[in-house]
Amino acid sequence: MIMAMKRIAINTGGGDAPGLNAVIRAVVSAATNRGWECIGIRDGFDGILQPERYPSGGFVRLTPDTVRGISHLGGTILGTTNRGNPLSYPTRTPAGETVLADRSDDILAFFASKDIDALVAVGGDGSLTIAEALGRKGLKVIGVPKTIDNDLDKTVTTFGFDTAVTFATECLDRLHSTAESHQRIMVVEVMGRYAGWIALHAGIAGGAHGILIPEIPYEIDRVADKVKARDQLGRMYSIIVVAEGAHARGGAMAVAAPAADGHVERLGGIGERVAHQLQERTGKEARVVVLGHLLRGGSPTAFDRLAALRFGAAAVRALDEGKHGIMVALAFPNVQYVPLAELIGRMKSVPLEGDTVATGRDLGISFGD
Amino acid sequence: MIMAMKRIAINTGGGDAPGLNAVIRAVVSAATNRGWECIGIRDGFDGILQPERYPSGGFVRLTPDTVRGISHLGGTILGTTNRGNPLSYPTRTPAGETVLADRSDDILAFFASKDIDALVAVGGDGSLTIAEALGRKGLKVIGVPKTIDNDLDKTVTTFGFDTAVTFATECLDRLHSTAESHQRIMVVEVMGRYAGWIALHAGIAGGAHGILIPEIPYEIDRVADKVKARDQLGRMYSIIVVAEGAHARGGAMAVAAPAADGHVERLGGIGERVAHQLQERTGKEARVVVLGHLLRGGSPTAFDRLAALRFGAAAVRALDEGKHGIMVALAFPNVQYVPLAELIGRMKSVPLEGDTVATGRDLGISFGD
Amino acid sequence: MIMAMKRIAINTGGGDAPGLNAVIRAVVSAATNRGWECIGIRDGFDGILQPERYPSGGFVRLTPDTVRGISHLGGTILGTTNRGNPLSYPTRTPAGETVLADRSDDILAFFASKDIDALVAVGGDGSLTIAEALGRKGLKVIGVPKTIDNDLDKTVTTFGFDTAVTFATECLDRLHSTAESHQRIMVVEVMGRYAGWIALHAGIAGGAHGILIPEIPYEIDRVADKVKARDQLGRMYSIIVVAEGAHARGGAMAVAAPAADGHVERLGGIGERVAHQLQERTGKEARVVVLGHLLRGGSPTAFDRLAALRFGAAAVRALDEGKHGIMVALAFPNVQYVPLAELIGRMKSVPLEGDTVATGRDLGISFGD
Amino acid sequence: MIMAMKRIAINTGGGDAPGLNAVIRAVVSAATNRGWECIGIRDGFDGILQPERYPSGGFVRLTPDTVRGISHLGGTILGTTNRGNPLSYPTRTPAGETVLADRSDDILAFFASKDIDALVAVGGDGSLTIAEALGRKGLKVIGVPKTIDNDLDKTVTTFGFDTAVTFATECLDRLHSTAESHQRIMVVEVMGRYAGWIALHAGIAGGAHGILIPEIPYEIDRVADKVKARDQLGRMYSIIVVAEGAHARGGAMAVAAPAADGHVERLGGIGERVAHQLQERTGKEARVVVLGHLLRGGSPTAFDRLAALRFGAAAVRALDEGKHGIMVALAFPNVQYVPLAELIGRMKSVPLEGDTVATGRDLGISFGD
Repeated sequence: MIMAMKRIAINTGGGDAPGLNAVIRAVVSAATNRGWECIGIRDGFDGILQPERYPSGGFVRLTPDTVRGISHLGGTILGTTNRGNPLSYPTRTPAGETVLADRSDDILAFFASKDIDALVAVGGDGSLTIAEALGRKGLKVIGVPKTIDNDLDKTVTTFGFDTAVTFATECLDRLHSTAESHQRIMVVEVMGRYAGWIALHAGIAGGAHGILIPEIPYEIDRVADKVKARDQLGRMYSIIVVAEGAHARGGAMAVAAPAADGHVERLGGIGERVAHQLQERTGKEARVVVLGHLLRGGSPTAFDRLAALRFGAAAVRALDEGKHGIMVALAFPNVQYVPLAELIGRMKSVPLEGDTVATGRDLGISFGD
Repeated sequence: MIMAMKRIAINTGGGDAPGLNAVIRAVVSAATNRGWECIGIRDGFDGILQPERYPSGGFVRLTPDTVRGISHLGGTILGTTNRGNPLSYPTRTPAGETVLADRSDDILAFFASKDIDALVAVGGDGSLTIAEALGRKGLKVIGVPKTIDNDLDKTVTTFGFDTAVTFATECLDRLHSTAESHQRIMVVEVMGRYAGWIALHAGIAGGAHGILIPEIPYEIDRVADKVKARDQLGRMYSIIVVAEGAHARGGAMAVAAPAADGHVERLGGIGERVAHQLQERTGKEARVVVLGHLLRGGSPTAFDRLAALRFGAAAVRALDEGKHGIMVALAFPNVQYVPLAELIGRMKSVPLEGDTVATGRDLGISFGD
Repeated sequence: MIMAMKRIAINTGGGDAPGLNAVIRAVVSAATNRGWECIGIRDGFDGILQPERYPSGGFVRLTPDTVRGISHLGGTILGTTNRGNPLSYPTRTPAGETVLADRSDDILAFFASKDIDALVAVGGDGSLTIAEALGRKGLKVIGVPKTIDNDLDKTVTTFGFDTAVTFATECLDRLHSTAESHQRIMVVEVMGRYAGWIALHAGIAGGAHGILIPEIPYEIDRVADKVKARDQLGRMYSIIVVAEGAHARGGAMAVAAPAADGHVERLGGIGERVAHQLQERTGKEARVVVLGHLLRGGSPTAFDRLAALRFGAAAVRALDEGKHGIMVALAFPNVQYVPLAELIGRMKSVPLEGDTVATGRDLGISFGD
Repeated sequence: MIMAMKRIAINTGGGDAPGLNAVIRAVVSAATNRGWECIGIRDGFDGILQPERYPSGGFVRLTPDTVRGISHLGGTILGTTNRGNPLSYPTRTPAGETVLADRSDDILAFFASKDIDALVAVGGDGSLTIAEALGRKGLKVIGVPKTIDNDLDKTVTTFGFDTAVTFATECLDRLHSTAESHQRIMVVEVMGRYAGWIALHAGIAGGAHGILIPEIPYEIDRVADKVKARDQLGRMYSIIVVAEGAHARGGAMAVAAPAADGHVERLGGIGERVAHQLQERTGKEARVVVLGHLLRGGSPTAFDRLAALRFGAAAVRALDEGKHGIMVALAFPNVQYVPLAELIGRMKSVPLEGDTVATGRDLGISFGD
């Protein structure tokens, strides 16, 4: 027998992404439709773990009125997303020290004391890992995947990614004429620490001449060759898109201080390094544009709004059907449910043999390899 | 043994759709990469069938230079898309009469005389049917699916649809404040003669209160109920999205002159009829906005540009691998190939049991049923 | 001696226009900065004249918190704009009849009873006329001009107009490729009942081939000549922008039921008529797109946001300097103040000898004359 | 007697700006209307001064066909804008040295030899100074003002500025939710080396909390005070817009290596410095976004397209009326003509007593003073 829900909670975690409010809106509508109450937790889990910081309470009743007209707004009405991990939460001991403590029991106690039956946890890799752990401890959780980087496995895509690609493409469009008028190399650094989806999709859609992504270690000389080849053809400018996690192959890494795991040379500054190296090797002026934070905000595209609304409604339907411990995922034509446990520690990289990379190559784009 | 291609042709048919130029750009780049020549046929098949109309020739050599910088432009550099069907083409007899004749042999003769090895045919249902017929006659053809309506089967989506949904959603955003300020019913008619995809996706993303699509015959009283219920809650305005192929259930159809196939009451004017009926039943002012032609044009979204570029490159790769008689289709994560013969006469409707319709219902949207 | 303000009110009237919320935001901030209270009146003057309709009160205290983050939102947080004229307001007599009564005394009584010192009235021609009348009765009023049509005199421009022109231009961009692909005439009807500013500006910016505005009566044969001339040059499509107040010259008016004042043939439907006539005269397919309501809504452009914020702040500064009975107006480089009495009954038409019309002619655009 | 023109030339100089192509389009249309020929010079004046670099010629005949459909495209069809100054042009002596030489006579000789009657020179301060000098030497020149910074005197605005402000405002919109979600200070550096127009207009329209411009030397402690005051109110994030020419007052300049003229501390990097200092003083995380090159490109807004088209047509009309040695300027309601000699060495700063700065203050924005 499925026990009927009466009251559910929702929280949003991790970095900002366009579409969070649309998820909230759909969860509240779908829950209200079923006669359930809906509670929003403020600032990740801080509303539960640091209630003293909230004179008006660390959580808020969400009704159709409070979520009216928010689907197209960026950000989240639940406040800051980027807060501490409740499994390893800065906590002051009686002795006055601050230590990292597992506060998951406090979270379960909160749910019990407020008669909240389930949690819809919206977030990326980190947030879903937390959700999975809380689920194992007995909380009924549904994960809603969120990442502008598109690197979450088991779902075709998530909300936020299309908005990021759309804006990055618009920026590339803007840079073409300027790069051409000034006969420059423009290096455009975009998000993508572990996976190059934004760089790949925006780079192809925006007509870049080179795309450097974590999945394909680059040789700067190959990129410089592309720039020089364009010059030979009278195309006196080049636009190179670089994911923040892109890294040079082999020897270059030694020079540039590789991280402990050997995966990433140095986070941040990759755009500047590539620009500098290309300027040296080609004799052309190079400039960097770092899109970074611009890719996280803004009103979600129609695609992302729809995805977010579908995710939110599917999360509630899943609870209604007695499911939990799962993530809602986008497949075609419908959403589907994936056990949270299957997600942990997995990442969705750009497939090197996929047709999108092949398309890039057919368009003459250099991947630096 | 796969015989190497040396020269291929491309044409674009059917209604205008954002992304046609991106397909052309990718086909030309990918063909040039392989050392093939690329020929563009003007105005559907008119460049072949009415060569006398083209002082400069009914076809044009396409090189990377001629397709440079066109990916983000609407329309097609190959001219008019909406021309006659070569299988049933208006042809003047020696006696001076104009009859509809099968001109497919002339097309095959053209390909033979110009040493063109294959055709990439970009178009919708009609164009792909023509391509399939030409293929059966011996022409090597690759179909590239194009429809802003998203009603082509066997592909997750096509280019043009995301642009249409994006713009329709933007229009809905604009209408909210005005409808509210004037306390009106706004009926927004969008394309979708046989399938309600645009209405469904844009209606949900754009916060519509009612969505009427061909797949769900509506009862106008149910829609009026929704408007009245909103008034009761103090929401003194409503926005209803109507696909042009939406139709009332049962009796209403008899009144309104059903088409021979019983499928559509009357094409065109459905928005106006719905507005009129809602005004009568609710006593509220209603206005119609017909988005029609606005949904066909414009610069393709990043999503559609990428899809179009992938389709174009995949069409060339297919030929390179010795495939033909197939359509390139979007699946995830990669494109795939579908025999053209499998497509004929099929249409992709909105699945009534799918999660998108369920999402709409959970958001409180009325489908008029 | 200037008597210090303590409490001011703001209302919004007339049709919806992008930027109303930005005006409100600026008025509230500037008033709060000066230690004044700020009151928002709901639904034009209905919040005062029909208080019984508002369980929570017909007016609302506005604080920086209540207007936070609203500058970029379309519509108005003060509710419906399009309500009755308080100088001629539907009022029920003791006998149960509804008559139009002058309710201005009730408005003055409201201001007195609530200790409200002044009113910032945001609206178009009608609203400013009401404001002027209330001013003559002793209320301290500041008018803030609002019209998407740009037909208010004594100000270079108002907020809302740039947003309307921007969107209309985007729509024209979209229609080019479609009109060309289908070799059609596209007639685009835009707002502008008495003045052709939107049609003129968007038509030139959007590359229209014909522009019909109220200020230049047209002869349909001249427009048809333009379409035919383009066909001769191989430009097989034409885009004609028509202001809703455009009208034919001379004889045509007699046929088409001129209004009493001889100014406008028939409001509404002008686009359809022009399309029909052009189709007849050229033998080409013609289609109509009516942008109407789409031009009123949406997020204001940066230009309109800035104009609206400047207007709102200037209204408060004017009161602070002891001014009233005036409208804030945009001049360059600064706003200036214009007596409301100077505005009454005036309209700003497109100057026929101005350089914008001359630019249109130099670009080969037909004005139908 | 006004001698009729037969052939005119146009060139574009200085940095890229959205609207250059619209100017070209209007010049060509207006000249063609008058039966004049129109010649485009490539790459500033390089097409004349280094003809050997151009196999196809350093100039090109411009006809209505060559400029068709370019008004909405960024960049310039005349190639690179940012080339050498012909009054001080790198020239190789017979001895093989490269010296800077005055090549104006070569330019005049070119015009004479090709029977070109006049030059329309589109550019900023530098290009207009060159145009003025050529005018004094006898060439008939018309200047068309271009600057995205809006710092050219004697014209209300120029094309390019509205596009830059619009995009910068969109970026600010995007950053709000992200800054809020992460509780950060976001410092957004925009163009404006000598004048703060972009920062001021976009900062107000985009809801910035601080705006630092060259015209108002800032004290970083005042900006930090604003950030802290917002924190006190529970607004845990702040957005500070900084023009690249902004500079600290007094003592700070000594530390930071002031330029010789004492005007600008150090060009470039100002955003980073402000972010660093705010982080130090407030203990909050601060991030920088440098919009730089993104502001120069892209499709011009409707406002800028119209302005550019009006400028281009007015330039030709001026020649037709026998005027030269003048710049076309935007006044309201019409363009006007300003002697080029009046412009030299002048700049349009933000007026500190103007209502726009006052609006900023009334909205609670800190200017750091």
